[in-house]
Amino acid sequence: MSLTKKPITGMKDLLPAEMRVRDFVCGMIKETYQSFGFAAIDTPAVEHIGNLASKQGGENEKLIFKILKRGEKLNLAAAAGEDDLVDSGLRYDLTVPLVRYYANNADALPSPFKALQIGYVWRADRPQRGRYRQFMQCDIDIIGDESNMAEIELILATAQALTRIGFDDFHIRISDRRILRAMAAYSGFSEDEYDRVFIALDKLDKIGLAGVAAELAAGGLAAEKAATLTELVNEIAARPDTEEGGAAAALTALAATLEGHLDADVAASLSAIIEGVHAVGGGACRIVFDPTLVRGMSYYTGTIFEVAAAGLGISLGGGGRYDRLIGSFTGREVAAVGFSLGFERIVLLLTEGGFQVPGTMAKKAYLLEKGLAASVVADTMQKAQAERDSGAQVLVTRMNKNKKFQKEQLAKDGYGEMVEIFKE
Amino acid sequence: MSLTKKPITGMKDLLPAEMRVRDFVCGMIKETYQSFGFAAIDTPAVEHIGNLASKQGGENEKLIFKILKRGEKLNLAAAAGEDDLVDSGLRYDLTVPLVRYYANNADALPSPFKALQIGYVWRADRPQRGRYRQFMQCDIDIIGDESNMAEIELILATAQALTRIGFDDFHIRISDRRILRAMAAYSGFSEDEYDRVFIALDKLDKIGLAGVAAELAAGGLAAEKAATLTELVNEIAARPDTEEGGAAAALTALAATLEGHLDADVAASLSAIIEGVHAVGGGACRIVFDPTLVRGMSYYTGTIFEVAAAGLGISLGGGGRYDRLIGSFTGREVAAVGFSLGFERIVLLLTEGGFQVPGTMAKKAYLLEKGLAASVVADTMQKAQAERDSGAQVLVTRMNKNKKFQKEQLAKDGYGEMVEIFKE
Repeated sequence: MSLTKKPITGMKDLLPAEMRVRDFVCGMIKETYQSFGFAAIDTPAVEHIGNLASKQGGENEKLIFKILKRGEKLNLAAAAGEDDLVDSGLRYDLTVPLVRYYANNADALPSPFKALQIGYVWRADRPQRGRYRQFMQCDIDIIGDESNMAEIELILATAQALTRIGFDDFHIRISDRRILRAMAAYSGFSEDEYDRVFIALDKLDKIGLAGVAAELAAGGLAAEKAATLTELVNEIAARPDTEEGGAAAALTALAATLEGHLDADVAASLSAIIEGVHAVGGGACRIVFDPTLVRGMSYYTGTIFEVAAAGLGISLGGGGRYDRLIGSFTGREVAAVGFSLGFERIVLLLTEGGFQVPGTMAKKAYLLEKGLAASVVADTMQKAQAERDSGAQVLVTRMNKNKKFQKEQLAKDGYGEMVEIFKE
Repeated sequence: MSLTKKPITGMKDLLPAEMRVRDFVCGMIKETYQSFGFAAIDTPAVEHIGNLASKQGGENEKLIFKILKRGEKLNLAAAAGEDDLVDSGLRYDLTVPLVRYYANNADALPSPFKALQIGYVWRADRPQRGRYRQFMQCDIDIIGDESNMAEIELILATAQALTRIGFDDFHIRISDRRILRAMAAYSGFSEDEYDRVFIALDKLDKIGLAGVAAELAAGGLAAEKAATLTELVNEIAARPDTEEGGAAAALTALAATLEGHLDADVAASLSAIIEGVHAVGGGACRIVFDPTLVRGMSYYTGTIFEVAAAGLGISLGGGGRYDRLIGSFTGREVAAVGFSLGFERIVLLLTEGGFQVPGTMAKKAYLLEKGLAASVVADTMQKAQAERDSGAQVLVTRMNKNKKFQKEQLAKDGYGEMVEIFKE
């Protein structure tokens, strides 16, 4: 077979300059979350196909890279379809593997368990700018805490990680899946129509309220129900303030409107989270009640949240509570809530903005001409090691024929001092 | 489909205690290699099947996890065999992807290029103790330096990484593929018999010289040639010292014996590497000439080396020069030499030895009883944040019903101070 230089479609080679940014972001995230006591874990990249295709992953289940069975298990002649050829696939997120991991290892883990997982996931999506088929996810999850404390901490820790990376203008949008369901019920939709309603509402930012109404109509949903829903969204949007104190008032008003469709605890709990974040984080973390927030995954059961970067109209991450997912493995429900940072998007924003990783050590390069005496090479290497021992990064490298270009590249890489060593 | 709690066969869930050791080892390796100016890069986990199955990967090519084509490309009915179903697979090492990466990106990279790649690889091997189907590799490579300087630096940097991790008794075995070939030629073997000779010789440590002779006979190779080879190996083994100065003498003697089969440069170059490592590293890095060293991969063209841990009879890593691999992609040969550390084996030795990651910060835990007032939770979180800001790792967590067990686990995780907060 012939050799191919380009990486596989939709995946990319990471060059040193991007890797420096990635390592910096990854380091900040790890350091911050670990200071909160989140413990790093890892799960295999390869997962049972039955776990991946269990209807919890939503649209992602269509994007699985499937792995061929091996050896005797693979019987091509007798295969009636894909299912006969495949028993595993690459994970498309970190939540499904985490839930399996917890179900498998709960006895060996603290309870509540605070997990930090950073790793690649794979989706056979249509490649486009900034969207790759292999990308990194950074998730924190708190398992076994059904109280608000978990949400408050996930939000505060994530806000702190973003701040340390260098983002200074973002806010958290927060809502609850049960509010969304109550809004759909209040508008007269039946339970089997909810998914279509949520998918339309999820596009509000992009297509506006009229667009949502059009999408609902196109989906065959009754115009009068759509009108009730859009009116309700309009009412909410008309409120002057949905932050902190304002949010509590907005929630009380909405809960009154939705009476009979919404458990009173839901609004109170959401209010408490917003106030908690404000009380602990002060102005460092803006948090806004946004009842039109949807979040795609079908496993969410309660609170949902998203980080919005100001002016960019994009999300830097999000998550929510999924109290029933672990029970699908163990038969026993365990409270769980998670926050996933959009690692690739953060790196893209930084690199496009010309971000330079703050230098932590002096960088020096020795360029050695070809054919130097062994003793000169050894002396140089020894000198370089002594400099490393006192904290510098020291490169000893062969001098290129095109020395000018080599030095320009080294300078771009942050080598402040270059020493050329020539033959006698 | 039903849900499965266990990870997929041969792959493992990484618990927090092992992850701490892994992160420590990974950090030490990264820090050390980066201080030498190796630049971190990454390649996709998924690689073209044509690149993976190009006869460079030796036995590993039989162990590829193959990925099913997607969408229209997958035509099960028309498929005559596996090849029609598959166009990619998971990488089984980091060298093949690195070579593709360099062929693809050389214009954007410094020359010589010093690469550091740490990442998972996958092999569908028969699982056994300490051998998993997903495991981490740590490779450094120097591309574009045909001189000995590259070997000397790879060896010194790796020795330093191992020392920093805590290994204090290991040595480097070194030889050259061309010596091995000359030994086979000297013994009368023909070129098409070399591979069988090398595979047998590779087992010398395990089965002894008589075992090697038996294996050669079983492979249908002439007994007299085998006798010549074993006699030669015996002669070499009888030399009192193959380190530093002794190595030079041993190499001179062997080169004289192999005259006509071995280029004189080879022994001189190997001698210079051994002396160079000694001159720069002093006693910190023992290096031993071992002409029976084989290394499995067929792409090696020159120097080969391996780290042997004293008393354990196992290798902690190895590598060599593969000057022709890049040319197989680009048509233009580029000098290249690499060293791969046996990450999983290092972690296994450390964890089995009860290794504790040196603590870098104070660890404190707040245990909060259920039902506390929101203000008490907020106060505790604020206090915890102030303590994090002054450098501690501070966990705020829900108090478990089984508080005793929870505290024992936290103590095991290194939490030295625990504060319990109860309802009024």
